[in-house]
Amino acid sequence: MAYFDLPEAELRTYRPERHEPADFDAFWAQTLNEAREHARATQFELVQVPLTTVEVFDVTFSGAAGMPVRGWLVLPRARREPLPCVVEFLGYGGGRGLAHEWLLYASAGYAHFIMDTRGQGSAWRSGDTADAGSGGEPHLPGFMTLGIRDPHSYYYRRLYTDAARAVEMIRSHPAVDAARVAVTGGSQGGGLALAAAGLIPDVVACLPDVPFLCHFERAVRITDSLPYGEIAQFMRVQRHAITDVMSTLSYFDGLHFAARAQAQALFSVGLMDDVCPPSTVYAAFNHYAGTKQIEEYPFNRHEGGQAHHDLKKLTFLNEVL
Amino acid sequence: MAYFDLPEAELRTYRPERHEPADFDAFWAQTLNEAREHARATQFELVQVPLTTVEVFDVTFSGAAGMPVRGWLVLPRARREPLPCVVEFLGYGGGRGLAHEWLLYASAGYAHFIMDTRGQGSAWRSGDTADAGSGGEPHLPGFMTLGIRDPHSYYYRRLYTDAARAVEMIRSHPAVDAARVAVTGGSQGGGLALAAAGLIPDVVACLPDVPFLCHFERAVRITDSLPYGEIAQFMRVQRHAITDVMSTLSYFDGLHFAARAQAQALFSVGLMDDVCPPSTVYAAFNHYAGTKQIEEYPFNRHEGGQAHHDLKKLTFLNEVL
Amino acid sequence: MAYFDLPEAELRTYRPERHEPADFDAFWAQTLNEAREHARATQFELVQVPLTTVEVFDVTFSGAAGMPVRGWLVLPRARREPLPCVVEFLGYGGGRGLAHEWLLYASAGYAHFIMDTRGQGSAWRSGDTADAGSGGEPHLPGFMTLGIRDPHSYYYRRLYTDAARAVEMIRSHPAVDAARVAVTGGSQGGGLALAAAGLIPDVVACLPDVPFLCHFERAVRITDSLPYGEIAQFMRVQRHAITDVMSTLSYFDGLHFAARAQAQALFSVGLMDDVCPPSTVYAAFNHYAGTKQIEEYPFNRHEGGQAHHDLKKLTFLNEVL
Amino acid sequence: MAYFDLPEAELRTYRPERHEPADFDAFWAQTLNEAREHARATQFELVQVPLTTVEVFDVTFSGAAGMPVRGWLVLPRARREPLPCVVEFLGYGGGRGLAHEWLLYASAGYAHFIMDTRGQGSAWRSGDTADAGSGGEPHLPGFMTLGIRDPHSYYYRRLYTDAARAVEMIRSHPAVDAARVAVTGGSQGGGLALAAAGLIPDVVACLPDVPFLCHFERAVRITDSLPYGEIAQFMRVQRHAITDVMSTLSYFDGLHFAARAQAQALFSVGLMDDVCPPSTVYAAFNHYAGTKQIEEYPFNRHEGGQAHHDLKKLTFLNEVL
Amino acid sequence: MAYFDLPEAELRTYRPERHEPADFDAFWAQTLNEAREHARATQFELVQVPLTTVEVFDVTFSGAAGMPVRGWLVLPRARREPLPCVVEFLGYGGGRGLAHEWLLYASAGYAHFIMDTRGQGSAWRSGDTADAGSGGEPHLPGFMTLGIRDPHSYYYRRLYTDAARAVEMIRSHPAVDAARVAVTGGSQGGGLALAAAGLIPDVVACLPDVPFLCHFERAVRITDSLPYGEIAQFMRVQRHAITDVMSTLSYFDGLHFAARAQAQALFSVGLMDDVCPPSTVYAAFNHYAGTKQIEEYPFNRHEGGQAHHDLKKLTFLNEVL
Amino acid sequence: MAYFDLPEAELRTYRPERHEPADFDAFWAQTLNEAREHARATQFELVQVPLTTVEVFDVTFSGAAGMPVRGWLVLPRARREPLPCVVEFLGYGGGRGLAHEWLLYASAGYAHFIMDTRGQGSAWRSGDTADAGSGGEPHLPGFMTLGIRDPHSYYYRRLYTDAARAVEMIRSHPAVDAARVAVTGGSQGGGLALAAAGLIPDVVACLPDVPFLCHFERAVRITDSLPYGEIAQFMRVQRHAITDVMSTLSYFDGLHFAARAQAQALFSVGLMDDVCPPSTVYAAFNHYAGTKQIEEYPFNRHEGGQAHHDLKKLTFLNEVL
Repeated sequence: MAYFDLPEAELRTYRPERHEPADFDAFWAQTLNEAREHARATQFELVQVPLTTVEVFDVTFSGAAGMPVRGWLVLPRARREPLPCVVEFLGYGGGRGLAHEWLLYASAGYAHFIMDTRGQGSAWRSGDTADAGSGGEPHLPGFMTLGIRDPHSYYYRRLYTDAARAVEMIRSHPAVDAARVAVTGGSQGGGLALAAAGLIPDVVACLPDVPFLCHFERAVRITDSLPYGEIAQFMRVQRHAITDVMSTLSYFDGLHFAARAQAQALFSVGLMDDVCPPSTVYAAFNHYAGTKQIEEYPFNRHEGGQAHHDLKKLTFLNEVL
Repeated sequence: MAYFDLPEAELRTYRPERHEPADFDAFWAQTLNEAREHARATQFELVQVPLTTVEVFDVTFSGAAGMPVRGWLVLPRARREPLPCVVEFLGYGGGRGLAHEWLLYASAGYAHFIMDTRGQGSAWRSGDTADAGSGGEPHLPGFMTLGIRDPHSYYYRRLYTDAARAVEMIRSHPAVDAARVAVTGGSQGGGLALAAAGLIPDVVACLPDVPFLCHFERAVRITDSLPYGEIAQFMRVQRHAITDVMSTLSYFDGLHFAARAQAQALFSVGLMDDVCPPSTVYAAFNHYAGTKQIEEYPFNRHEGGQAHHDLKKLTFLNEVL
Repeated sequence: MAYFDLPEAELRTYRPERHEPADFDAFWAQTLNEAREHARATQFELVQVPLTTVEVFDVTFSGAAGMPVRGWLVLPRARREPLPCVVEFLGYGGGRGLAHEWLLYASAGYAHFIMDTRGQGSAWRSGDTADAGSGGEPHLPGFMTLGIRDPHSYYYRRLYTDAARAVEMIRSHPAVDAARVAVTGGSQGGGLALAAAGLIPDVVACLPDVPFLCHFERAVRITDSLPYGEIAQFMRVQRHAITDVMSTLSYFDGLHFAARAQAQALFSVGLMDDVCPPSTVYAAFNHYAGTKQIEEYPFNRHEGGQAHHDLKKLTFLNEVL
Repeated sequence: MAYFDLPEAELRTYRPERHEPADFDAFWAQTLNEAREHARATQFELVQVPLTTVEVFDVTFSGAAGMPVRGWLVLPRARREPLPCVVEFLGYGGGRGLAHEWLLYASAGYAHFIMDTRGQGSAWRSGDTADAGSGGEPHLPGFMTLGIRDPHSYYYRRLYTDAARAVEMIRSHPAVDAARVAVTGGSQGGGLALAAAGLIPDVVACLPDVPFLCHFERAVRITDSLPYGEIAQFMRVQRHAITDVMSTLSYFDGLHFAARAQAQALFSVGLMDDVCPPSTVYAAFNHYAGTKQIEEYPFNRHEGGQAHHDLKKLTFLNEVL
Repeated sequence: MAYFDLPEAELRTYRPERHEPADFDAFWAQTLNEAREHARATQFELVQVPLTTVEVFDVTFSGAAGMPVRGWLVLPRARREPLPCVVEFLGYGGGRGLAHEWLLYASAGYAHFIMDTRGQGSAWRSGDTADAGSGGEPHLPGFMTLGIRDPHSYYYRRLYTDAARAVEMIRSHPAVDAARVAVTGGSQGGGLALAAAGLIPDVVACLPDVPFLCHFERAVRITDSLPYGEIAQFMRVQRHAITDVMSTLSYFDGLHFAARAQAQALFSVGLMDDVCPPSTVYAAFNHYAGTKQIEEYPFNRHEGGQAHHDLKKLTFLNEVL
Repeated sequence: MAYFDLPEAELRTYRPERHEPADFDAFWAQTLNEAREHARATQFELVQVPLTTVEVFDVTFSGAAGMPVRGWLVLPRARREPLPCVVEFLGYGGGRGLAHEWLLYASAGYAHFIMDTRGQGSAWRSGDTADAGSGGEPHLPGFMTLGIRDPHSYYYRRLYTDAARAVEMIRSHPAVDAARVAVTGGSQGGGLALAAAGLIPDVVACLPDVPFLCHFERAVRITDSLPYGEIAQFMRVQRHAITDVMSTLSYFDGLHFAARAQAQALFSVGLMDDVCPPSTVYAAFNHYAGTKQIEEYPFNRHEGGQAHHDLKKLTFLNEVL
């Protein structure tokens, strides 16, 4: 999609006013405490894979409200522990897939934890984690409007909590150096990386790629593309719910997490991205509180920098971890 | 969509072999018993609507596993009770909407009960019923694959049960003549009407329009259109789950309910329907056990006969109720 | 379609200069006089419908140049006459359909007249009125360019006249209180409601929903969507006709009727409407001469407020009729 | 569009049963007589064009019921009269355009008459002929369903008559050798060429390219593409009119004209043509009564053979005219 | 496509800064000299065509680096030489086709040379000229990125040179008046006409229609449509090549040729053209150095003025040649 | 895309007649000899990548006619040589990309050679190899019709030769066990794997996924999807070239290579694949001369088995290499 958002020059300084609920921090403190109180011991089960350079563990840890969440921990077979660790979150609709799909970071010498996404994982890569906490409120097919009438029941309350818990959990693994943890992910995974960096103060690096879940107020108006489009479609039918929906979303806006994050950040953005429009990415970037840089891909859409950017990320991680 | 299914002549006699699980009846008997055991008193609350010819009640009754399900009961204001009753189920993605949207059957002198669809009701008409029973297993956005790995957890186990319970419930209302109840609906609503007619032996009339949820084995192969397409898309990603999915669906195939139904039936079918292909509708029709007739719309797609067919339905109801 | 028109804040005050032909009033006075001169007695024929709460009459009245136009008159069976009356005009491509499709206003206690649309009525709901007055000039398939080279031969000259005549006609029916007539309709029907309110000075209420036929100068440039798109497509081929076309349209622009209307108005607009872009609706609203209010549907397209807005309309009618 | 119709081998022998009305010949004899009775003198007006090799006349002749129809007569400036003449009919939606668009046949030494298409001529090439005979019956936007409820009011009754009259008219022009007239055209123009060849017994050559208006019974079922799709769409809404529509079309089916035609024929067909599917073209070809040949374009759609085929047509004309 | 570019008023004065390489003139002087040095005698072979008013020659001349390029020379059969000559270049993807496709200009009394486009000529009209000079560098399917990493290897270096050489070559033909040569073409052909007018100082007239290859910096950002979209798509994958690509394109930008051209010009532009957006056409027009005028088609897309504009061009040519 | 090809049961035994040119073997023997004669020493250059478990070499070897072709050789850093080797060919439009994109096979203990695709590599993954041998004949944008008028000039003559040469070349590397080489690839890569297995007799394993370039006669007729669709589109314009094109393709049809191949094979096929329709894959499979098995993905399109199938391939390789 050709340039459709703000002019390039405006993008780079776009820093819209944030509308943060007064009890934002309280809401999340209470949510995380509830999760921690229900946490049980993490299970790490060695997986039989036909691979010789890495080892993979099937992980089950306690996420939101203590509910079990799955993930893969991939470690280089030849290692001197403890290792710096990359925690990765996933894009909308996909799950953790199969163990042998995750070779990059471990092949570069890092511990790599891939968190499965509850309920998702059937649209393009399979997943294994149930989203047991849903009350089943009427919603549009998809996850964007699941429980959206109230921040406490919203799907992303559970998923953001899983993400923060994943970081806390992996730090306690003996192979991981708790002081050298980075969070990353693309699209929804980028939004979760921002949330984790905003909720867990001492994460060292945050690498959100074409992040989703940022600046909802604008996003739901300027793009029809999914998944933001699900929210507009819901409000198209549930016309009386618009105020509630926008109020709920204010607890989950990446802008507020960005404004709290201290990790060194490397963002990426596609200037032709209609899924996560560049102005919404720059809104998060320009509010980001920590040291930061951003890589612009002027002719890319939501695919962003792909392998080209992976190389930049490996270089960045070598420097900061 | 131009003719893409079997030739017209073959359609009319298409009666594929049914593959019914051995414990089909036991499964549903146990499911309905569980629902009945948890049933609580139905609530009927008079709604303030700016209408003078009808009265509307907001109904909350006990559906699957006793969970609350909503609906509207619309009665002609001028009435001599008890009235024959039309129970209506809804198409995929829609909910019961607002009370004043349902005027046809009451304006024709019937009691009319419209059952809300759990969890749905945000894609094109709003709904008010939660689907509390979901375990949240990974699924494709949409309802077609929610819990589909096991018949006990499948979304439609709950929804079919709601439909059967709706019939049982409305019969006990003083304004309704329990001996004169018809079930109807279009698309998903038609599939639910077939299920209700198969599960509740003494329903008098069954009027499924362009019914969905019939002959899954063929449907998931010959059309990409949603909602059948959701199932194919799920199996596209969850490749190892194909056997489980097809096994689960065998408990929910409209063909098996049709083979048990005794109500007088009026079906309708669109010969250019790519959402519910005509061969899948005729498969149900040709297996239907009761007295039956079918109205063909040779140039219609999934919209079927619309107001034109409503008139035929009113005539049919006048005769059989 | 995501926001594509003027920014929200500008929309609300958008009041473009009007370019009205000098003989606008003379043109319409002459046109209406011609219609009245050729008028014959209206026929009301009771229709056999399987409905108990309402009565329906098949109406044939004299429209433009006295040509016969059809409609339905729906009355509550239990009534104390004379009743306030709602005159409804229809969207592009549809006709009056079948009698039992029109239950809302009579169920709320109003006389309800639905005017058929000449020549239309085959694209999505059937119609029964011929458009005998066409000279058959070359035109793009569709009605938007039928006779568009001259205001006297333009299709909408006949249709607007039918609309004004419908109001005059229905007022003389014994069941109707001539002092309490409202006009309404969606899209093309909204444009006709505006025309009727501009042509018939003492209509009491005007409720145009997502009105079409407003602010042609802008509409034909900012949207490709049909039916405005038909006009652009015509001028794409008939390049030498652009001046004539724009001149003709100036006799039919809803802005000029709005500037004359005195009825109390309730507009509705979808901010994502690409068929009748919000700026064209606001242009009419901001020029509307009578008391007025507008309901905005921020995430809706051309469907506007649907049943949700019907409820607001019933409330508004209860107050003003 | 890839192969979607009958297998290649079956196509070549496809000769479906024809269902011809008993009064087919009477209907057309009466229609043509009526036209001849109302005929007035043809006008030929020399047009100022910046061309040196040809002369162009703007022609107005009497078509159906004597109504005026326009056309261009293009003659090589250097000529020895009388010339053989090619009469050309046009595709759906287009008109005769501008005089300098028609250079091929006159540059090859023929008189060339291009008949304008009444009412059309705004979708892709402009036209100048009104369709004054329409009663304005409700129809789908487009010309396919204009007056389709009765063969006497059907649009194509007028247009086919124009085509036959064009041949009769041009023969009387002094520059034309009445014994050497060919008819041709693509798509709708091909259907009109077949009709003219069926109605005027002594036309010498008929060159229908990818002809439309053939074998309606099958065409309306196997393709959604316009313009056949207009008919299906009409019957989708006007469900009660299906029998009338199919009865009307039986008076206009190219198969019946083909079965009467005696001119030497050169057909062309695109095997991937979804607008005029190859089986419908072969149905006409295989029923064609005169000497005939067909050029197959195996990988072409509705564009058929284009300039490549024009060369074959010039060669064919050189031989037979 | 509705208006999507700059507002109409801004379009007409849009004259962006040009970014011309310092060695632009040297680059082209060297390129043309190389071509001239390798030039061999042009071959003119009379073609057998079934046409009586014109003669056609199959031309092979020496283009870029002396490589053979094909073309048609069409001459009125009745002529008094030398004739003024129209040199025509072709749109993207098409070739010179067949000889009888080119009748307009010769029928108006001009010599007409149609240059084939190397390597193209298979997407919509056939061609006969190979592009032997390609090094085969990795490129996106299409011609826009063939050799784009360096201006010396870029496909359009060869094609622009062919265009300039075509003008030089045709001037030496005895039937042509070298002092009265015009260049024209649509889209890519319009871009080539601008290039030829910029490279050959004494061309008398330049008639670029909806010209392509102008103002690349903006074009690749504001439209996804092909062929500009090929360049953006290439840079989407070859992310490291963006600087090289933009540098190469600066040697081929129509703006720089326009700024050098002295021929009298008649441009045309479609205000709804998404293939060659109007701002890119006006950018060239407003930089054009010679006497100039432009015809705006307010409702046209990339088809521009078609036959309507051909008439304006014939009039213009009559005046200036 | 829902099932559109032969019925499932017929697919599995579909073995169409092969139409092999008499000089097929001679053509390829001569082609390979020419390549071998021009071969120069292969270069292996160690690449700096931020990876710890593997080493990567940038390879330049002599392909068709000795022209340089690039590739990556990825080796596990911890290894005991010589290793079994997997040679991988790539899908249409993509190139070898960046070194760190290829981790799977080396992480499983294999030497892994990824051959770049000449000229391609800009549509979705970048490439670095020029296709210097093109004569630049007119072709449709894309590679499918480049030089297609003659088998000697056809693009795939060069690319198939590169593939065969890649196998020969990698066998001579000291880290590779020449007796244990497998060939694989998806889509175009699958077609190249078949070609390599047919041309190099002692390859041990062949794993073509959803192979392209098989059974052209049928493929170009039953699908419009690219890249097969390019060939049909070319013949749509170059109508006179159809015989030549089909003759050329007969030298490149995967069916003939399959009929010669002796390697143990594991195929995969998507039953809903419209890019490489299942009948064309089964045609190759059923003609395959060696020991063979096939994995069916009943609900997948051209994506086939993805990571799910990679696991099956690793298991298969463990057994046969």
